Amino acid sequence: MKKAVVLLSGGLDSSTTLFLARKEGYSCRCLIFDYGQRHQREIKAALKIARIAKCKAQILKIALPWRGSSLLDKKLKIPQLNNSITQELNNRIPTTYVPARNTIFLSYAVSFAEATHSEAIFIGANAIDYSGYPDCRPEYFRIFNGLIKCGTKIGVEDKSVVIKTPLINMTKAQIVKLGLKLKVPFECTWSCYKGGRTPCMSCDSCRLRKKGFDETGIEDPLINSNIKNQNARLPK
Amino acid sequence: MKKAVVLLSGGLDSSTTLFLARKEGYSCRCLIFDYGQRHQREIKAALKIARIAKCKAQILKIALPWRGSSLLDKKLKIPQLNNSITQELNNRIPTTYVPARNTIFLSYAVSFAEATHSEAIFIGANAIDYSGYPDCRPEYFRIFNGLIKCGTKIGVEDKSVVIKTPLINMTKAQIVKLGLKLKVPFECTWSCYKGGRTPCMSCDSCRLRKKGFDETGIEDPLINSNIKNQNARLPK
Repeated sequence: MKKAVVLLSGGLDSSTTLFLARKEGYSCRCLIFDYGQRHQREIKAALKIARIAKCKAQILKIALPWRGSSLLDKKLKIPQLNNSITQELNNRIPTTYVPARNTIFLSYAVSFAEATHSEAIFIGANAIDYSGYPDCRPEYFRIFNGLIKCGTKIGVEDKSVVIKTPLINMTKAQIVKLGLKLKVPFECTWSCYKGGRTPCMSCDSCRLRKKGFDETGIEDPLINSNIKNQNARLPK
Repeated sequence: MKKAVVLLSGGLDSSTTLFLARKEGYSCRCLIFDYGQRHQREIKAALKIARIAKCKAQILKIALPWRGSSLLDKKLKIPQLNNSITQELNNRIPTTYVPARNTIFLSYAVSFAEATHSEAIFIGANAIDYSGYPDCRPEYFRIFNGLIKCGTKIGVEDKSVVIKTPLINMTKAQIVKLGLKLKVPFECTWSCYKGGRTPCMSCDSCRLRKKGFDETGIEDPLINSNIKNQNARLPK
């Protein structure tokens, strides 16, 4: 069986990517990063998704003591969006950008893939409905694949491992539809940058997720299940 | 003052690179990786070199639980060279190769450099008298610089950080000569893959270091100081 390493954050995109890789016949090992993000909810979500997908998961704790991002530094504020999300996101890289995050994640994934003789690395990056992070664009992954070919033993021996980005050119609505088709348990995923009891609905990540469900005309089961939970806690 | 991040292993090459970067007018911050290597001697050496160079040092502990290298897995044997080093090293990548090691180290360096507004990353890689690791060759660093330009905020904003490899085309003898000129305290560096009391003199790294000093016609002060220490311990 062909083997793959899947970068799993516990969000909508990476969870859909895991279920897609599995459907394509890969035996998947998930890499989950505990990199000092504001909350542990997404790590718990990632573990749950891996368990449901019946895939092994490896949590890697990594230190970025220099921070440089509002996702890592609680003194900085997570930006709130008030206007149209596409209008606000078009012309800036937000403070939630983490310096070289995907480069760090992928470098570990390459090491893991090479040591375990895996032939693919799956990442749920998307360059359509996204926050404008430069390390989510097709050109970036094209260059990274060249780096693997040139800079690893497996690459120079011509059995190279390849980074795959199946969602890169999809809209969020298309990703939602694909995930529903693959039976991704969206109610177990977590996208919000903040670690509250319920999603904040105003950060980039919540807004992009909402856009996807709104355009599909389907209710987000995560929001749905949160409302149900809240109702269940109300005095009768 | 222009700022740089310097990857420091405590060996001959990275120590010379640090002293060179300092001479070129950079304010240097050293990154030292504790990545599960067989011994702590090189980390202690790196800390000492940084202290002598009066530069700040940051140790990063990173986990590579999949290993995949004789440098990380004590069950595997470090290869011993018996014949001519250039003859033996020419046609193989040795088991001391660590999957994607330089990619991991450089990805952290890029993150650190971006967060601290540094303009350069120095690495003491060498592609002449070296062990044949693919991630030490000029083409690899050329591609990595392209990756930074495309995949970081600092890169797309046109103030990119650049990886510099000043030793890449030097022989080990030329590096020794440069280090002596820069007053690198070679007696404090450590190159041996094994963590013995004295260098083993038979691993790739010891043999390449010896080649450098032999061709220069100068005694290695590390070996010299070890012999003196041993003599001092002998009963009189």
